[in-house]
Order: sequence, then structure tokens, then C-alpha cells
Amino acid sequence: MRDQALSFAISRQAAQLDELKQLLSIPSISAQPEHKGDVARAAQWLADHLRAMGMQRAQVMPTSGHPVVYSEWLGAGANKPTLLVYGHYDVQPVDPLDLWQSDPFRPEVRGQNIYARGASDDKGQLYAHVKAVEAYLKTSGKLPVNVKFILEGEEEVGSPSLDPFIEANRQLLAADAVLISDGSMPRPDLPALTYGLRGICYMEVKIIGPKRDLHSGSFGGAVYNPIQALSEIIISMKDARGHVTLPGFYDRVRPIDDEERRSLAKAPFDEAAFLSEAGIPSTWGEKGYTVLEQICARPTLECNGIWGGYMSEGSKTVLPSAASAKISMRLVPDQDPKEIAELFRAHVKRVAPPHVQVTVKDLHGGKPAMVDRSSSVMQAAATALERAFDRQPVLTREGGSIPVVSTFQSVLNAPTVLMGLGLSDDNLHSPNEKLHLPNFYRGIQASIHFLDEWSQRR
Amino acid sequence: MRDQALSFAISRQAAQLDELKQLLSIPSISAQPEHKGDVARAAQWLADHLRAMGMQRAQVMPTSGHPVVYSEWLGAGANKPTLLVYGHYDVQPVDPLDLWQSDPFRPEVRGQNIYARGASDDKGQLYAHVKAVEAYLKTSGKLPVNVKFILEGEEEVGSPSLDPFIEANRQLLAADAVLISDGSMPRPDLPALTYGLRGICYMEVKIIGPKRDLHSGSFGGAVYNPIQALSEIIISMKDARGHVTLPGFYDRVRPIDDEERRSLAKAPFDEAAFLSEAGIPSTWGEKGYTVLEQICARPTLECNGIWGGYMSEGSKTVLPSAASAKISMRLVPDQDPKEIAELFRAHVKRVAPPHVQVTVKDLHGGKPAMVDRSSSVMQAAATALERAFDRQPVLTREGGSIPVVSTFQSVLNAPTVLMGLGLSDDNLHSPNEKLHLPNFYRGIQASIHFLDEWSQRR
Repeated sequence: MRDQALSFAISRQAAQLDELKQLLSIPSISAQPEHKGDVARAAQWLADHLRAMGMQRAQVMPTSGHPVVYSEWLGAGANKPTLLVYGHYDVQPVDPLDLWQSDPFRPEVRGQNIYARGASDDKGQLYAHVKAVEAYLKTSGKLPVNVKFILEGEEEVGSPSLDPFIEANRQLLAADAVLISDGSMPRPDLPALTYGLRGICYMEVKIIGPKRDLHSGSFGGAVYNPIQALSEIIISMKDARGHVTLPGFYDRVRPIDDEERRSLAKAPFDEAAFLSEAGIPSTWGEKGYTVLEQICARPTLECNGIWGGYMSEGSKTVLPSAASAKISMRLVPDQDPKEIAELFRAHVKRVAPPHVQVTVKDLHGGKPAMVDRSSSVMQAAATALERAFDRQPVLTREGGSIPVVSTFQSVLNAPTVLMGLGLSDDNLHSPNEKLHLPNFYRGIQASIHFLDEWSQRR
Repeated sequence: MRDQALSFAISRQAAQLDELKQLLSIPSISAQPEHKGDVARAAQWLADHLRAMGMQRAQVMPTSGHPVVYSEWLGAGANKPTLLVYGHYDVQPVDPLDLWQSDPFRPEVRGQNIYARGASDDKGQLYAHVKAVEAYLKTSGKLPVNVKFILEGEEEVGSPSLDPFIEANRQLLAADAVLISDGSMPRPDLPALTYGLRGICYMEVKIIGPKRDLHSGSFGGAVYNPIQALSEIIISMKDARGHVTLPGFYDRVRPIDDEERRSLAKAPFDEAAFLSEAGIPSTWGEKGYTVLEQICARPTLECNGIWGGYMSEGSKTVLPSAASAKISMRLVPDQDPKEIAELFRAHVKRVAPPHVQVTVKDLHGGKPAMVDRSSSVMQAAATALERAFDRQPVLTREGGSIPVVSTFQSVLNAPTVLMGLGLSDDNLHSPNEKLHLPNFYRGIQASIHFLDEWSQRR
């Protein structure tokens, strides 16, 4: 069954490329109202395509924004797991158009790459999984596991309709794991799996001192300055090496064990490139951790913004009435954003001087996500990538958050496998976006292996 | 000579009031271009008036803005000191006009007050000295000391032409002391002399970290945050009780001795009113000093503004590229703003973490000013006020800076006596500005006594 699917997929590469070109030709730019019809057209194209290749209940489902494409094939039975494949068919705007070597919506193959808006982000990557499913259905008429697709049209505008859609359709979307290919691998010859994402707890602190801006000559020396109070609060939260000093902050942090450290150490990390991209002379951070560990496997606290008093040209002598800061914390398992928000709030109230008023707002929270690397779904994904790319994937964690992963975890209770098929030089969101075609074809094979492997390991 | 002058002044109160009304009727609003002619008219009125009463070289001197009125009487001879009387004949705008009980430029006496724009700030106060000089000239044909007047027309718009004028006319303006009446006394029955003003050193610090705003998920944990660095720098400069911790900051601070503390303690200070005006629950500040000492006789350091990173609605996850703060220090004798700027700069460079770049700009500096309370000019002023008001004046210091005092000190090397004749409820810059007429008449008498006293003590 698997081998027939693989043979079918390999024999149909010309057709797969032609179809991908059709999908890439639709200018489904979600941010631009004039392309609303194109976004709908891309959704319809995918639903039609999924239906034609044998998926069931293939449909374009409306939301308050752009629609979601759903389809399923549940013929593997209740004793087999269910995979939910997420992708997005909308794309970024194309400006500046004059920097494109070819029309962004007339896909062109040059060398080993196909150039078009959405080639890597995310039409090409999602389509690899569509073609893997097709290879099974066209050869055996069935899949090794149950499969559902959820393909959204609003990822490039922040997915405003996605969480409500998942909440409203939790039965329909129920799954044992989620597969997302909307990222990259370190090099064409080195596949990767991301098994951890940091969560976030984003707070805003406002310090109010005098009822209005005061003359710093007439009042300075006898009135507590809100900027001073705010600076003291900021300093009280992190030491000079980046270790967070909020009491209780690390209580639920899962330590990085030796095995994981060895595993993370295998992931390529180019410190020179990191320094150059950031434009800094030297890294810095929590003692006892590598830079990669610092930015993906350890929690952090950063001040994202600060303001107060006189901020324009010249020298206005005010003792300001108020000062504010936005402060966010990146969280790792098993920190909980609600609990961290409470720790934060309690700490700020405790350390603020009694001469000022303090308000603390909880702006945004998201849980950290981590898939057990020894789980069947991760083992299956790792084996599948090894078979398709002839090389063991590196297993890594990312420092950012992907909100939908957090939603899948919290609403569906399903872990997400992140199998990026792009490359870091794919020019996402920029002119001349491309997809490395060997990644596309190997991605189809990896997906075929994955369905087979997971079916057997489960 | 003095007694004839006093008699003359007292006998002429009706005429003095009529003349003051004439001056107050000219809408010399320096901020409004449509009143440029009125400003010039007020200058001419004063020059004509000074000439008519016997002052010499009375003239309207052009500047790049509104003119300066100058006149002198140097007949007391080289063995007598020279007094430079400063005042300003321009006034604030009058909006909102509907809140005035009478026309701001049709002076009206109600009760013991005269209501008009400029009544207290500063036409009424400067005119008291004009009338004192007149009383001597009309009775004895001479003055006890040499007197010069410098009356400017741009005080309400920040005196842009005054410093260049003084620089360019330092010979003409040469004097042993300056007398300014452009302030207030605590109560109508309690005169006051201000013998000290704080100076200022106003700096701006910019911290530059990464070359652009970074994603706090991808970089947070390994990059020094400029807001963190800035907060550390701010905290390093002042302790939690307001004592400045910049090394060397207090080296030249003249201590407040016991005699001065006792003298300052006699100045009425209403802490409840201070708290209410600031809108704070409690004062705070350097240990071992009274609130009045903290705000006028001790140097301070205040952060006047701070900004960096994301400052709008919501939760943008940036690790900002830069953060800036405006920080000013109020200085007391014998601190030097240039020296303090250097201390500040050196300290910031020393404490800034090596991971960031720092720039420090010197935005503005002004020297502190203090007149020796035992000097002949201060003793003469104190005695004069006591004779005119039948009560010893309180001697106090102010927390703010008056730039012209600093200029007179640095360019003419002349100390300034600040003899406020207004009251704190005179509605300066507001509707229904007034002058308490008994203060006006006693001010004339005080000025007559002052010229006589100084002549004898010198």
C-alpha cells in the first residue's frame, strides 16, 4: 500500500507540478479586498480538488472573513488514529512588484525552484500533503490513518476567524494529532521537526503619580517620579544575565535534560548569522545555557515598549504624571500564562513604591506547546523524514508562538507536529518567493511515509 | 531725600494708578502677531514716560523680535553702586475671554485690586520701581544710587532675543546688582525675598541595541534589551529616597547650614496645599531635609521622559532596537552644569552594559544662582521691605530656574535680588488677572527705601 503510493507519487511529478502551478496562479491575497473573489476561488479550487481525488465532505465553509476548506476521509476506522492537516491557501501581497523577476501569479520554474507568491508560504507545503493522500487513494482507495484537512484563508491577516471556527467545530475537527507544514528546514539535505514552541504572557503596567505633569523645578525632590518607579519595577524582574527574578516564575519550568541538550546541540545554529541578523556585537543571556537553548527552550521576560513624560524635541522640564510599559514573557512547558500573569501582577503590586498607583493589564496569553519526542506521532514523523530525505531530521524547538498550535492543543487536546518543507531563503513575504522543488517532491514522499509509519506505531 | 520721595509717592497714588491703567490698556500680547504694534506701543509709552520723568538715554532698542526699553540715570557717581532693574512689558494672551469679569485691557478697580491682563505679570510690578525712581527725581532731582532699566517685550514667549541683547550690550548694562519684581509674596502682610534659584543640567540618553526591532520570540533571551539597559542606568543614578548616586554629584554642593535652615523654616510652606496641587497622597524625598529644602535647596535628578519600542494599543512582540530618556538635574550652588554634564556622561558610559551603544546629549544647562543673604544689596532689600510692609520679609529659595538671572550672573557678573510684589492668587496667565493695590503702593515705598538703604550700606 505504501510502496504503491510512493511509486504513484514519483511517477506523477509532472502532473503535481502542473496542478501546483494552477493553485499558485490564483492571486488569493487575503489582505486586499479586491482579491476577495480570488481567495474564494482558491478555496473552491482546493475543495473541488480534494473531492475529485476521493476525499469526503470536501466543502468550503464560510466564516465571518475568508472561508475555511474542510474535508475528511475516516475509512481507516476507529482503531486507527486521526490526523488533522492544517495549511493556509491565502498569500501575502506582492509589492514591490518591480522587484519580481517573473509575474508572482504566473509560476515559473528556474533551476530547481518554482517562483510564485505562495510557493513556499503555504500553498506548496500544504499541497505536498494533498498529493500524498491522493497517492494512497488513487492506488489503494484508502489511507493508513483517518485524515482531515483544515485549510484557512486568513493566516496572512492574523487568522481572525480561525479560533472561533475551531471552537464551533470541535467535534468535526477532533483528531489525535495535527500536522502543519508552514515552516522551513535548515538546509535542503537536512530535514527538521519542531517539537516545542514557547507560550506567551503579555502584560501592560501603568504607574500613576501626580494628577498632572508637574514643574520639575517646583516639585522635583519631594514627589516620587513614575518613571523612576517603573524603572525599579522593570529592574526587579530580571537580573543582569537575563534570569527572571519574578518569585515563582520558574516553579513549573520543565528542565532541559541531558538527552534533550545533546539532541538540541545537533541542530545547526549559526551564531555569526544570528549576530548579523540582530545587528549586535555579542550575545548575552542566562548562564549555563547555549544561545539556542536561551532563545527556544528557556522562558524569558522582555520589555516590549515603554513611554511616559516628555518625548519630543528639546528640554521640557516636567515631572511626569504617568509612565507605562509593555512587558511580555515567553513561556515554556509547563508554565501557564494565567498563573504567570497572576505572579506578575502580585509582584508589581508588591514592589511598587507606596507613593504611586499601579494598574496591571493582562493583554494576551498563550500556552507553550511541546510534543513528546518519544510519542508515536513524533517518531513516525522523524522516521518518515529520514526515509524521504535519507537523513535523520534534527529535532528542535522554536522561540516564538504559533497561536493555532496553542488552539489545537487547548480546544482539540491534540499535539501538533511541525514539519517545515521550506528553506530559510524562500523569500517569504518578499519578492521572488520560491519553493525548492526537491523539497516539494520529497515532502510528498515524507507525508506518504508518515501516514504509514504512524498507522503502524500507534 | 528719601523722606521727600516717600511723601511724594504717597501723595501721588491717584496719578500712579491712572498711569498704570494707561499702561495696562495697551494689549501688548507678545505671542500674537496681530498685537506686534501694541507691543511696540507699550515699549514707546514706557520710554517716553521714563524720559519725561528725568531718566536719561531712554530709548526703544530693536532686537530681532520685540524691542527692549532701556534708560539710565548715572548721576550718583562712580563711588555709588549701579542697580539694573529688569521687568517685562509684554503680557499673556487673554483667552478664554468670556471668563473675564471685565475687559482685560480696560483696567477696573474692584475692592483692593486692579483687574487687567498684565496687572501683576509684570506691568504693575515693574511700574512700582519706575514710580520710586520718579519720586526721587521729582523731589531731589537725583537718585541715591545709579539706576538702569532693561524692560523686555518677549518674556511671555521665552525671551528669545534677551540673551543676545545682554551679550551685545554688556557695557551698557554693567551693574553691581539686578532687581527683579516678577513674582509673589506669601501673603499681603508678609513680604519675601528669594535669594536662591536652582540651576539645571538637562541630558538625553539613547541606548541602541539591535539594528532593528527584533521578534521577541526568535531573539528574546540572547539579546540585551535596550529598555532593560536604560532602566538599569536610570536606577543607578538615584536611590529609593531620592539621593542622587552619580559619583561626584554632591562634591560642590554648598551645605545648608543651621542658620539657613532656621531662616528657611520661617517661610510659610503649606504641605497640604502642596499635596493637593500635586495630587499625591504623600511627599517623599531625601532623608534629613524638609520638603521645602528638598524642592528648593537640594539638587535633584528627575527623568522627564522615556520612550522606546512599541507604545500603541495591543501586544506587539518586539525586542526594541532603541530606548531613550530625558533626564534633568536641578542644581544648587556651587554645582556647575558643564561639570555635572560630564559626570553624567561618564557615569552613563561606565554603567551601560557592553552589549549596547550609548549616546548622551547635553540639551540645556543653566547655573544655579544665589545671593549672599548678608550682602549689602540683600540687607538693603530686606530692610526696605520691612519698612514698607512693617514686617520682616521671609528669605527663601526657589526650586526652578529663571534663565535671565543666570544670564545676568554669567554675563554681567551681577547678583539678582528677587522682590516679588504679586500674590499667589493673582491669576497669572488666566482670566481675571489682578494686582493687589496695597502691594503696588507699598512696592513703590519699598523700592524708595531700597535705593536709599543700598546707597548707605555700600
